[in-house]
Order: sequence, then C-alpha cells, then structure tokens
Amino acid sequence: MAHLLSTSCPLKVASGCKLNSKPLSCDLVAFRTSSLSLQTSKSRFRMLVSNSERSKRNYTTHATTLPTSWQASNEPDTNFRQSSSEHSKPKRVLVIGGDGYCGWATALHLSNKGYEVAIVDSLVRRLFDHQLGLDSLTPITSIHNRIRCWKSLTGKTIELYIGDVCDFEFLSETFKSFEPNAVVHFGEQRSAPFSMIDRSRAVFTQNNNVIGTLNVLFAIKEFSEDCHLVKLGTMGEYGTPNIDIEEGYISITHNGRTDTLPYPKQASSFYHLSKVHDSNNIAFTCKAWGIRATDLNQGVVYGVRTDETEMHEELYNRFDYDGIFGTALNRFCVQAAVGHPLTVYGKGGQTRGYLDIRDTVQCVELAIANPANPGEFRVFNQFTEQFSVNELAALVTKAGEKVGIDVQTMSVPNPRVEAEEHYYNAKHTKLIELGLKPHLLSDSLLDSLLNFAIQFKDRVDIKQIMPSVSWRKIGVKTRTVAA
Amino acid sequence: MAHLLSTSCPLKVASGCKLNSKPLSCDLVAFRTSSLSLQTSKSRFRMLVSNSERSKRNYTTHATTLPTSWQASNEPDTNFRQSSSEHSKPKRVLVIGGDGYCGWATALHLSNKGYEVAIVDSLVRRLFDHQLGLDSLTPITSIHNRIRCWKSLTGKTIELYIGDVCDFEFLSETFKSFEPNAVVHFGEQRSAPFSMIDRSRAVFTQNNNVIGTLNVLFAIKEFSEDCHLVKLGTMGEYGTPNIDIEEGYISITHNGRTDTLPYPKQASSFYHLSKVHDSNNIAFTCKAWGIRATDLNQGVVYGVRTDETEMHEELYNRFDYDGIFGTALNRFCVQAAVGHPLTVYGKGGQTRGYLDIRDTVQCVELAIANPANPGEFRVFNQFTEQFSVNELAALVTKAGEKVGIDVQTMSVPNPRVEAEEHYYNAKHTKLIELGLKPHLLSDSLLDSLLNFAIQFKDRVDIKQIMPSVSWRKIGVKTRTVAA
Repeated sequence: MAHLLSTSCPLKVASGCKLNSKPLSCDLVAFRTSSLSLQTSKSRFRMLVSNSERSKRNYTTHATTLPTSWQASNEPDTNFRQSSSEHSKPKRVLVIGGDGYCGWATALHLSNKGYEVAIVDSLVRRLFDHQLGLDSLTPITSIHNRIRCWKSLTGKTIELYIGDVCDFEFLSETFKSFEPNAVVHFGEQRSAPFSMIDRSRAVFTQNNNVIGTLNVLFAIKEFSEDCHLVKLGTMGEYGTPNIDIEEGYISITHNGRTDTLPYPKQASSFYHLSKVHDSNNIAFTCKAWGIRATDLNQGVVYGVRTDETEMHEELYNRFDYDGIFGTALNRFCVQAAVGHPLTVYGKGGQTRGYLDIRDTVQCVELAIANPANPGEFRVFNQFTEQFSVNELAALVTKAGEKVGIDVQTMSVPNPRVEAEEHYYNAKHTKLIELGLKPHLLSDSLLDSLLNFAIQFKDRVDIKQIMPSVSWRKIGVKTRTVAA
Repeated sequence: MAHLLSTSCPLKVASGCKLNSKPLSCDLVAFRTSSLSLQTSKSRFRMLVSNSERSKRNYTTHATTLPTSWQASNEPDTNFRQSSSEHSKPKRVLVIGGDGYCGWATALHLSNKGYEVAIVDSLVRRLFDHQLGLDSLTPITSIHNRIRCWKSLTGKTIELYIGDVCDFEFLSETFKSFEPNAVVHFGEQRSAPFSMIDRSRAVFTQNNNVIGTLNVLFAIKEFSEDCHLVKLGTMGEYGTPNIDIEEGYISITHNGRTDTLPYPKQASSFYHLSKVHDSNNIAFTCKAWGIRATDLNQGVVYGVRTDETEMHEELYNRFDYDGIFGTALNRFCVQAAVGHPLTVYGKGGQTRGYLDIRDTVQCVELAIANPANPGEFRVFNQFTEQFSVNELAALVTKAGEKVGIDVQTMSVPNPRVEAEEHYYNAKHTKLIELGLKPHLLSDSLLDSLLNFAIQFKDRVDIKQIMPSVSWRKIGVKTRTVAA
C-alpha cells in the first residue's frame, strides 16, 4: 500500500519556466472528508482533501492559485469538436493517471486543444521508481511544477486532484467537484513485469486496476451518467491467436448459427489479465446501466516528444528504459546509446502493434471528440504498425550506423511465457476512420529518438537494462531490490 | 470486511448426535502467525491460529480432539480411484468454502468416499445471513457440530481451518499443514444479487473472489505444485449467445485460418464477472506455471438432500429461498409450500442449465479422481438438463396439484438485465464421459423437494421471497435492510 502525503503546496515556479520570478505559495489545510471551494474574481482557489478511512493511503491536494484571466482567451480552437448538446462551453475531461507517460502527454494535448482538463493521480508510479531503484531517462519535475509551467507558457489551467481512484470517497469528491464530460482512465499499474515480480505485486495490480475501474464506473453512474469513459486497454489482451485479431468483437458461425461475440482473450501476465477483467466489467455496465465507453486496446508506445511536452524542459515526459517499465523500442534506443547489446528475448519473433506517443494523444482526443453512444461498449485497436522484436532490433542497428554507433544484439533467455514465432495480424481501422493521421516509424524518428537517448546517456543506470523478472519464477516472498 | 473471531471451541456434541453424552472441550490459544501441531498415539490435536496484519479479519481455529482409532478403518472404499503415483494412501482434498451449500455436501461426499478431507471456510456466508436478516429454510448447526456429528456417525475425521483465503498468511499455513493433493474451491461470494446490492458489495465480491483465487494459485505453485485445482465456475459466465455453448473452448475459422480459443464470455452480474476473471487468471497460470486445473462451469443447483447430509439432522444442508441467495427451483418449491405465487421474472423464457446437488458432489469427485494434466486448463459444463423459468413454474404447479396445493404464478418486473427470450443450447458431455450418472429432475424428486419445503414452512420469512435487488438501481450508498 502506498502512503502518499502532500501537505505543502510546491507552487514555486522553477527558474526555467519564465512566468513569475517570485515564488507563489499557499497553505493547505488537511480536512478529513471535506471539501472547500472558493472563487473570487481575481483568483481561483480550491482545496479538496480527502482521507479515506478505508485505505488511509490518499490525501487529495487540489490547489490552483492562478489568475482566472486565462479564461477569457480559453476559447476552443478550430480543432475542437463539441458534442451537439454543449455548444457553449468546452468539454471537461478528467485524465486519471495524468502524471504518467501516456497520461501526461494526453493531458497537455487535450488542454492545448481547448478542453478543460483535470489530472487525477496518486503519484504511486513515482513511488514505484523509488521502491525499485529506477528512474526516468529524462529528468522530470513534480506534477505541480509541470502544471505551473504549462500555465505559464500557454495560459491554460490544468486542475489537479491527488488521490487514488480505489478510494471511492476521494473519487466521489473529485467527480462532484470537477463534473467531467469525459474520463480518460490511464490510472492503472501498467507494467507486465511489475505484476510478475511477486505475489504481492500481482495482487496489487489486479486489485488496483479492477477495483479502481469499478469505482470509476460507479462514479459515472452516480454523478455523471452521460460522461464518456475512455479506458486504456492493451493489445496484449488478445494474446497471439492463430487467426486475425478484430477490434473487440468477432462474428462466429457455429453449427449453422451466427452471433457477434466479444473477441476471445488470452492475456499473458497478471497485468494484461487485469485489463481483460476491466474490459469485461465495463462491457457489462454499458449493457446494464447504459454507460458509454470506449476501450482503447493500445499497442506498445514509443517516443517521448509531443508538440506540447517539447515546449519546455519542465514539461518533459518520462522515458523508461529499465526492464520493468521500459517498452521495447524505447529500451533498444537507450541500449544502443550506451553501447549495451540490444536485449532480444528468445527468438525475437514476437510481433506486436506499435505506435508513436504522438498518435496516443491523437487517438484519445479522437475518441473524446466522437463519443460512444449511451450503452455502447466500443473497442478500438490503437496502434499503427506491426513489428517483430527482431525487426525493431534491425531498425535500431541501422539507425546506429548513421550516427556512428556499432550496435550489437544479444539473445536473452525469455523471461516471459509467450510464443516466440507466431502468426499475427491485428485490425486497426476504426481510429483511422475517425481521422487518425499516423506518425509511422521512420528513419528520421528513429534518428531523433536515438539522439535523444544519447543526449541523456549519462543518466542511464546500466544495472536496470537486463530483465530481472521471470514469469515462471515468481513466488510468494516479497522481492526487494538489493541496495 | 468481515471480522470473524472464534476463540472458544464448541466441541459439545449435540444431543441428537449420539456418540458422546459428555461434552468434550478444549482450550484454544490464539497465536499471532504461529502454528502448533501435536500428535499422540491416542489423540490428534492441532491448533493453528493466524491473524493477518493485513486484513485483521481472520482467526484460524483448527481443532480436532477426536481419537485416531478411525484411521485403522479408514481405507479407501471400492469407489475410490487413486492417482497412479499414490497407491498407498488416500488423496488429501482441501474443500475451500466447505461450510456452504455445495461445499458442505461435497466435503461429506468426499469423506464418505475415502478421501482425507479438510474444510477451509471463513464462515462469512453465515455473517451475510446475519447482516441481511436472512436464514436457511433448514436449521443448520455450527460447522464444529457438523464435523463432530460426521465423525460420530462414520468414524471419519474432517479437519477444519477457519480463515479467509484472501489472507495469504493463513492460506500458506493451511497448505503447509494439510499438504493437499487436490483443492476444491467453492470459497467465493456466490450470489449474483448480493454482488448487485450496492457498490461496496460489488467491490467485495470481485476483490474477494479474484484475490482469493489468486492466492490459491500462488499457494499451489509455492507449496504443492502437483496439486489439482478444482474450481467452481458458473454457466452464467457464457451468458446467452445465439450459438451453441461449448465446454470452455471453441474452434473458430476466420478469414481462412483456424484456431481453438477460449469460448467468449458475456457475464451479467459482478458476481458472474468475478468467475470470468478467475477463469482467465487460472488459464494463465496453467500455461505459465504448469498448474493443473479443472474449471467446473456449474448450472443452477437444486435439491437439498445427499446420501450423506440426510444421515442426521445435524448434517442437514442449508436451503436458501430468499431473493439474494435462493436459486430458481428451490425458491419455487418454498413459494408453493407457503402459498406464495411463484415469482417469474419478466417473460420467464430465461433458459439455464440445472442439476441436482447429488450430481454436484458426484461431478466434483469425478474431477478429483481424474485430474487434469500439469499445465492443462480443463473446462467442464456441470449441469444435466436445461429448463426455462416458465417450464420450472409449470413443473412445480403440477407437483403442487399432487399434494393438494393450488400453485399460482405471478410475473415480477425483472430485477436483472438479461434476455427473457433467447436461444440456448449448451454442451455438457465431458462429465458424462467421465462416468456421471445424472439424477434428472423427476416427479418424485419434485414431490420430495416440495414435501421438504412444506415440512419447514413455518420457518419461512415471507418478506424474503420477493426480489429486493435491482441490476439497474444499484448505487454507491451502502444498503442496509430495514429492521
């Protein structure tokens, strides 16, 4: 269990972010299960502190002391599509997990597009880094500084709710306070290896993800029935069947009868399984309660820069390269940058869907702008291209040659349980039909990613590169990283 | 959260159970996370008390003070099939949830067949009755009295471990103490309406069932790798697809390619969904760890008597007729007995698989006697006949005529979200192939069940008959039954 406490308000604007030279400050008072909302003509100041008696693990600190003058210039831009019922004001989007890799980039993108954005995050992902001795390749600043910097550069406010969605009291207060039109739910433990470290992490992952999502569904039903849930799933839910993967559903003719049914799932870690559980729970609530939901079965995300995060170094996104949270292509670029052989697991024929993080943010915005109907459980496969691990290794090797790096590849005994040579053909047309313009993996993107890794290579901890978690060896004893 | 505490040892033998006229007694001492095992030539006495710091909700009281003389006469009977590697001693079977409706009948049946049986139960099902103001139609005695009565009648010992499988410390100690060859896992919140009462019961159901089962899987991996898991699932996992329902898997030909995949699931309550989550988790561990598992997708169970429970009134099984825990046919018989119109939900065309509780115990024994292979995730559909609700109502009406009861039927607005007219054809051949001899629903069984209900009709609380839980109206506020 995470014990997160934030009782001081770090509103000091970092020196690199040139809005105010004088630090602002505020005092936050902790209330048990109470909220306080004050609005004046010159300032917008809210505090909301909730401490669940159940979990005792959350404090909500929701504080913005920024002038409201931005509101006048905060008209939706031309890219903003409104629902027919809400022509007068921008949509309010709650980004759960908005301090994470995909969540942060998404929150900024939506804010930039004219949505009113609030971030919900327990910051437990930062705690995992502390506990496991990991760190982002890129230096990242606090969520408070990030949001202030964004405000200083663009005039746009992102509200912040610090707390855990497994704490329903906190989540209720957040819904009642922010009144979202859409919820983007990234707020889950999102690493397969993390979920396979030991029993307690496996249990944490499933409990955290399943119960958190149940709470979000109940909050929508209770407080915001028309709210559109945009839920991050994963292509890993499908596994690697020997037939084409469809988008969520498949029509089956069997013994002379036909029905369209949920596509069969074959997840291969406790993390991936938690996403399958979520999908099933959400589908039921769409049917039983009329919830409108979009399940984004996302592929492996690569890249780090988006239009918004590259505006300032205080907006930099995190970039994980370690064996727990790092994803394939990002990891390979860092390995190449530091002269470590690329770590291909097993035969390297594992094929998956991939996408640029700039497409992640684009896809989420497309889903929000074109919401599911009441009662609809809509499933999109969110990736743009398929690659095998060996193909990625070859691409990085070639990119290395161009910048004068001799990239080696090594085969590592596969720590996972997965097919290493298999058929893979997954559909991904629905987001294209909604208008997605993919950023396909190009030489120039790989060059840029590699150069980015080289820029930060002094921050790389070589010990974190090799995989340390085995799917088969997971046990009941709690694992601690040696000092 | 349930707080269960049992520090005194109710070993008094009830007067009806004529083994000892003098009450036995023992003192139990509570240890924190410790166990004590003593065996002498004349007595077998064990205590195991565990108090998890995590959940603070379990006390394990494991106490048998019975003479060991039974062991000499405890040879497997002729019906007992042993695994090839264990010819010398009977299989040791842990029945999780062994105090419940199916669990108690199963524990006795297995004990009668020569297995060494231990019951694991937190007794939380009895707490639910207290909390919701419900009671079994049949008077049931404590689990301690039940086990003593069984010993007095048959000479067979059933060991007892009181605790919650969500508490891994308790479960570990239980596995290390009992060393099971097979685990039958009934130990879940098993009512769909209970899971739809309010948010906290929905969350309890999914957390309890999913995490409990994860813990059982980890315990098997860690302490008893060859142990066969026999897990109770439900036919409700499949929903009502418009094609034939197969047993766990379906071969799909799609775009010219074919694969055999998990049968698509469409569960329709948080309870049913929890069983789907379990199935997915178990399937993964079979593949990743080589767990051997049988998933019994059970239909709606009816009846109350088995060969063992009818031996003595202290062995009587529970019989639920209320709107939360009662199942269709059992409920109808009680309604007929007290002159209440049969409560048909909606149009009454809902068709499901049904089975006699005597077949439940037979099926579980068949699964144990013919275990799954290491790494195999075997799925059996455990029911014997299909009926619609209207068909059941007609059968009960007819049975009522024979005993002079004028049975009326009423249509109740359906509290569930489900199709009321649909195709339904589910396969159920695998258990037949293993040797199941079904007790089909007959006039004589219905007569017997109806007479049983009439015998106890003075115990019926009419207020509990109508459904009180709505799938659509479930909310976040905790619901309490009015006094």
